[in-house]
Amino acid sequence: MQIVYLVPGAMAKGPLGEKELRRRESLLQNWAFDGTSVTVVDVPESVSSIESAYEELLAAAASIETIRRLEKEGVDAVIIGCFGDPGMEAARELVTMPVIGPGEASLLLAAHLCHRMSVISVFQTLEATHRNQAYKAGVLDKLASVRGIDVPVLELMSDSDATFDRIVEVGRRAIEEDGAEALVFGCMTMSFLGVAPKLSSALGVPVINAAQAALKAAESTVSLGLSHSKRAFATPPKYRDEVQPVAPASSGARSLAEH
Amino acid sequence: MQIVYLVPGAMAKGPLGEKELRRRESLLQNWAFDGTSVTVVDVPESVSSIESAYEELLAAAASIETIRRLEKEGVDAVIIGCFGDPGMEAARELVTMPVIGPGEASLLLAAHLCHRMSVISVFQTLEATHRNQAYKAGVLDKLASVRGIDVPVLELMSDSDATFDRIVEVGRRAIEEDGAEALVFGCMTMSFLGVAPKLSSALGVPVINAAQAALKAAESTVSLGLSHSKRAFATPPKYRDEVQPVAPASSGARSLAEH
Amino acid sequence: MQIVYLVPGAMAKGPLGEKELRRRESLLQNWAFDGTSVTVVDVPESVSSIESAYEELLAAAASIETIRRLEKEGVDAVIIGCFGDPGMEAARELVTMPVIGPGEASLLLAAHLCHRMSVISVFQTLEATHRNQAYKAGVLDKLASVRGIDVPVLELMSDSDATFDRIVEVGRRAIEEDGAEALVFGCMTMSFLGVAPKLSSALGVPVINAAQAALKAAESTVSLGLSHSKRAFATPPKYRDEVQPVAPASSGARSLAEH
Amino acid sequence: MQIVYLVPGAMAKGPLGEKELRRRESLLQNWAFDGTSVTVVDVPESVSSIESAYEELLAAAASIETIRRLEKEGVDAVIIGCFGDPGMEAARELVTMPVIGPGEASLLLAAHLCHRMSVISVFQTLEATHRNQAYKAGVLDKLASVRGIDVPVLELMSDSDATFDRIVEVGRRAIEEDGAEALVFGCMTMSFLGVAPKLSSALGVPVINAAQAALKAAESTVSLGLSHSKRAFATPPKYRDEVQPVAPASSGARSLAEH
Amino acid sequence: MQIVYLVPGAMAKGPLGEKELRRRESLLQNWAFDGTSVTVVDVPESVSSIESAYEELLAAAASIETIRRLEKEGVDAVIIGCFGDPGMEAARELVTMPVIGPGEASLLLAAHLCHRMSVISVFQTLEATHRNQAYKAGVLDKLASVRGIDVPVLELMSDSDATFDRIVEVGRRAIEEDGAEALVFGCMTMSFLGVAPKLSSALGVPVINAAQAALKAAESTVSLGLSHSKRAFATPPKYRDEVQPVAPASSGARSLAEH
Amino acid sequence: MQIVYLVPGAMAKGPLGEKELRRRESLLQNWAFDGTSVTVVDVPESVSSIESAYEELLAAAASIETIRRLEKEGVDAVIIGCFGDPGMEAARELVTMPVIGPGEASLLLAAHLCHRMSVISVFQTLEATHRNQAYKAGVLDKLASVRGIDVPVLELMSDSDATFDRIVEVGRRAIEEDGAEALVFGCMTMSFLGVAPKLSSALGVPVINAAQAALKAAESTVSLGLSHSKRAFATPPKYRDEVQPVAPASSGARSLAEH
Repeated sequence: MQIVYLVPGAMAKGPLGEKELRRRESLLQNWAFDGTSVTVVDVPESVSSIESAYEELLAAAASIETIRRLEKEGVDAVIIGCFGDPGMEAARELVTMPVIGPGEASLLLAAHLCHRMSVISVFQTLEATHRNQAYKAGVLDKLASVRGIDVPVLELMSDSDATFDRIVEVGRRAIEEDGAEALVFGCMTMSFLGVAPKLSSALGVPVINAAQAALKAAESTVSLGLSHSKRAFATPPKYRDEVQPVAPASSGARSLAEH
Repeated sequence: MQIVYLVPGAMAKGPLGEKELRRRESLLQNWAFDGTSVTVVDVPESVSSIESAYEELLAAAASIETIRRLEKEGVDAVIIGCFGDPGMEAARELVTMPVIGPGEASLLLAAHLCHRMSVISVFQTLEATHRNQAYKAGVLDKLASVRGIDVPVLELMSDSDATFDRIVEVGRRAIEEDGAEALVFGCMTMSFLGVAPKLSSALGVPVINAAQAALKAAESTVSLGLSHSKRAFATPPKYRDEVQPVAPASSGARSLAEH
Repeated sequence: MQIVYLVPGAMAKGPLGEKELRRRESLLQNWAFDGTSVTVVDVPESVSSIESAYEELLAAAASIETIRRLEKEGVDAVIIGCFGDPGMEAARELVTMPVIGPGEASLLLAAHLCHRMSVISVFQTLEATHRNQAYKAGVLDKLASVRGIDVPVLELMSDSDATFDRIVEVGRRAIEEDGAEALVFGCMTMSFLGVAPKLSSALGVPVINAAQAALKAAESTVSLGLSHSKRAFATPPKYRDEVQPVAPASSGARSLAEH
Repeated sequence: MQIVYLVPGAMAKGPLGEKELRRRESLLQNWAFDGTSVTVVDVPESVSSIESAYEELLAAAASIETIRRLEKEGVDAVIIGCFGDPGMEAARELVTMPVIGPGEASLLLAAHLCHRMSVISVFQTLEATHRNQAYKAGVLDKLASVRGIDVPVLELMSDSDATFDRIVEVGRRAIEEDGAEALVFGCMTMSFLGVAPKLSSALGVPVINAAQAALKAAESTVSLGLSHSKRAFATPPKYRDEVQPVAPASSGARSLAEH
Repeated sequence: MQIVYLVPGAMAKGPLGEKELRRRESLLQNWAFDGTSVTVVDVPESVSSIESAYEELLAAAASIETIRRLEKEGVDAVIIGCFGDPGMEAARELVTMPVIGPGEASLLLAAHLCHRMSVISVFQTLEATHRNQAYKAGVLDKLASVRGIDVPVLELMSDSDATFDRIVEVGRRAIEEDGAEALVFGCMTMSFLGVAPKLSSALGVPVINAAQAALKAAESTVSLGLSHSKRAFATPPKYRDEVQPVAPASSGARSLAEH
Repeated sequence: MQIVYLVPGAMAKGPLGEKELRRRESLLQNWAFDGTSVTVVDVPESVSSIESAYEELLAAAASIETIRRLEKEGVDAVIIGCFGDPGMEAARELVTMPVIGPGEASLLLAAHLCHRMSVISVFQTLEATHRNQAYKAGVLDKLASVRGIDVPVLELMSDSDATFDRIVEVGRRAIEEDGAEALVFGCMTMSFLGVAPKLSSALGVPVINAAQAALKAAESTVSLGLSHSKRAFATPPKYRDEVQPVAPASSGARSLAEH
């Protein structure tokens, strides 16, 4: 299957550059099941990083046409490469393939592993955004807390030891003060640091890498011929003629996966 | 990876017989990603079918030692082959590999695809059980309803056309009266009927096959080196010496999956 | 005080035209307290009408710079003239004046008047959007239901008798079947039809005109020197230098209203 | 419009005296929109201050007939001048004009401005009362905490600097420990101290003066011709003949406000 | 132990008369455990029946001093003989003996027996009152519905066959349409009709007689030396000198019941 | 009435021995109302103590047949003598007499006495179990916290002064940090220590002895002829012939208790 991981920001022309796009593509390909091909693309017209509702809005608006085009090109699923899942609902209205948000996917993966989890975010100011994501994913009852490390996205990689130490400190407080039994990285750059296993060893709880969670959700839904319910994410009335019909029915089941 | 799908009932010596075990194994193997090997085993000392809290209790008690043994034999994950997830918490306390419950896995998979979902169960009397599963999975807010078809498990396969018609009727009411946007088969025998795509076409919403959902959850967690949080499912104090230590740490992360 | 009601769509060049903008401005001015001046403007680069998350996204992105500019021009508050409150959180991050969403304002006004309320929306497919608005407003517990009349926004005014009859029918079901004790018009065009009193008489419950609710929220907050908490809607880190400081402090209280 | 702010206690003959009634009337009149006339009256048969469910009960019973009389005299709305909203539901059953409770009004006003708010009350022992108010207003999900300053109502004004310092201290804990993004004064005497802007500057969050919130709710509902739903606050069967009919219908809409 | 069942209305001088007080006393005595003495008294200054928040308020105010006096006379517990539990919180603030509300007691007793229950009330207009009681009791999640039979309290006994038929009809709808698994009589006069067993046989679910539930709660708490937490129902600051101290401590535990 | 308190573990042959069974029987008999006879029995095939979901499962499976037999022998109600209520739902499906769980009973008794309560458990690892019990009892909203003392069940009695001091320390934190207004002993051995009154005096809040709570629930339901709803705890279809019919109907009301 062909999965596109769409970075909804202008990464190639930013400080991390094209190299980081390729590094992420390589990691995703390594994490994938056999038979999955992952391509990473960014959105040159978008923002440099996403740390607010405002930047999520700009990123979503800049990405939406790319997602429609990718479906027309035959891609099987798109992952929106930002933990805030910008534009996820809008995209689901316009396409029939699975559109996976790493925020939703990692909250639901963590819900398998524990009763209470915390999101480790870049800024504490994103708490309400992440709580709303948990509400929309349906797992708000399991959200112990959101805790920010207060390090900007674009500085996370500049001193990765300091970043790691800060995550350990904040993660420990989530476990000890908020009762978290698992942690979710609330940022893709944090996820691609590759420190989840090390953090898990340090703190004794599972740590969810949001990029991995999104990848597995994409692979799972595609392999089962499932996609989002059109009763939940209806095509806007004015665009119904444009959206490509799904065989065999507008059913959310894109193919016959059972034999 | 090696996954065991454990039917927690005495299927081989019942009316469905060894043949049905092998049929299910074949289906699961077909649904699996390349590199996954699935074995189906049953529990001869257990009940013939599970349609109540009482039978769940008997099934759980009969299965728990098998799950411990399977871990010692090197299995990577066990799926408890009953939608009620009998013994799931107890088993998670005793082993470190992922123990997947199809009920939890399919509720969480459905939560990806919709805002509101319904469980199609064998009996309406199982409503509170399924609601409690949704509470424990964390997605009670997304549970539109539980609707029973009132056909016993062991009769589901005897007239599969009648069963299908009954599921269509009950599923339609869940959609139209309860607002369900996706359906979950609340029974493994229903899941193995192979009618999810046909039902999805008939009703226009995604239909979750609980066996598939459990399989993908098992493959995803194993491939990511994740398992249940020991802070959530602690080894009972009296049994701590017996439970095999996990490398590199009692952390829930069983291996280094990130590079 | 100076309030701008910003239609986040391209109304002037659409079928309703400039005339409708002026008609709405006149109604708002009539509804306003003495001393309030209301101006209605639209966003020519935006969509023709908003009936989905996709169109909300486009409308929000098209409107956000206008809102920033309006604050710089000295406007006291902006009402986002769409029930879905597109871009409300993003705008609140960027400005310090009150940014009022009619959806939020009317849900909170209705919460004064009843225990349980229903939103009468254009399309049933907007249910999840409105439920999420109620969650974000904090009054989800009071939301009895969302019911759509399934008439497109741009057709609401073409046969206003038929529209009214349809609203009566749907509103009655909300009262009798869902237990609604008050109704909220989930669409601005519906609100500007001027039928709330007639509907209230027909059905015996208060009916909230979302444009009026937003206007009163704007007038109330401005007159009290209040605005949104910057702890709730923080200025994005990268934009902190750009956002004009608030006197006497970045406190949410824009002036001393008490003596 | 004519609004009466009814102090449901015996203020004139207490230590604060008639002078305080007139001071409050003057403040309310200053805060009002042009065209609003506010009169403050107290209830001589009632208690001296209200700091418990018991005193709320006595105050409510002592005030209810005054509210009925005020409606007969042509008053447009009554504000019950106690944060606990004593007798609010009972009064709404007996009259058709808006009966505004400052507790409900300020919780709903705060819900506009933030995701999470705290009530600063006189005594911690009032927590359950305020939580129940938040439940009844529908915004319990947004209530971060209730924190008492443990200063009796009648002592709040005796050393206003000490009172202010204590409020700052307690408010800061609500923000830092409980996550409050806005504060609500859970007491009218605290509200009439005139310190909300100063507190807002000190703590950097909006502070809601409950008297102002109630006034704006009264002005808004009266100006829109709205009142409480009679489906929510039904006239008691035995009193139906006594309650004056509302023109044009028992609809909650008291006049035609839309043109 | 000595328990007083306080009818917070003027029953003796109403249509039911002194005879009904004695009939209820006799029933309560029959239902009591050996060693319990139950006295029924009414409140002559109170209302004739209670069917609204307004009448609850009047009844509570009229009863509160009687409850204080009863404690001073050595009574072990008081039951407030109205399902709405008028004045319960206020009374608990002023006395240290258990003050039992039949509404709270029967909702909590029903919570033992089922997952979902419905209250059969006299009027549908009492729904919000009963929902608030369920919230305060803590069992709102188990409340399937409130359904009114729309028969005034004082007419319930005039044609008891018609009343019973009406209760059966409404109760059946609660079971079949709302999913109730047990029913609670939301009215004391309904409870004293003696029809709970007959209704239970007719409908196949447990039916809670609120008078019985209150009696058992009173007997249980008294026999265990328990009473309401003074942290939950604090004595009002101004009345602390008046409230009799409790031996051995202001602890809620009134005596040493364990050996 | 005849009540059996069934210790679902192998107490007689463990360190506490037969003597402890008789000591508990004597205490229960002392706490009972006149006319109640309490017998304590254990389950020799079961585990030595219950501190995990795994041990609850083993205990439940070992006890279930004993409960069925006790009903056939004419017992009026069975108390499952473990706070985790192991096997309660399963047993209720199979018998018609009341089956009381001390966990559920004490949470519901505490709900009478306070707004917020905490469970003092043996191990913190049991938190999710107790939270799920509160969910199933319906009172999760009142659960302030679960706090473990981290002393194994079988060591609670070895140094009872140390145990008491530890409970005081943990209970104080529940009150001061979590807002608990009442405490529940989340363990039967803790309950039978006889320290609830002493703890209540030390901490100033009611303390619920779970054994007493269960006894009073059993006595109350039996005396009123009530039992669990068969709509909530349906007899498993395959066992319907075996379960003894209830006179006069399968109604949950086992006898005519009203006259």
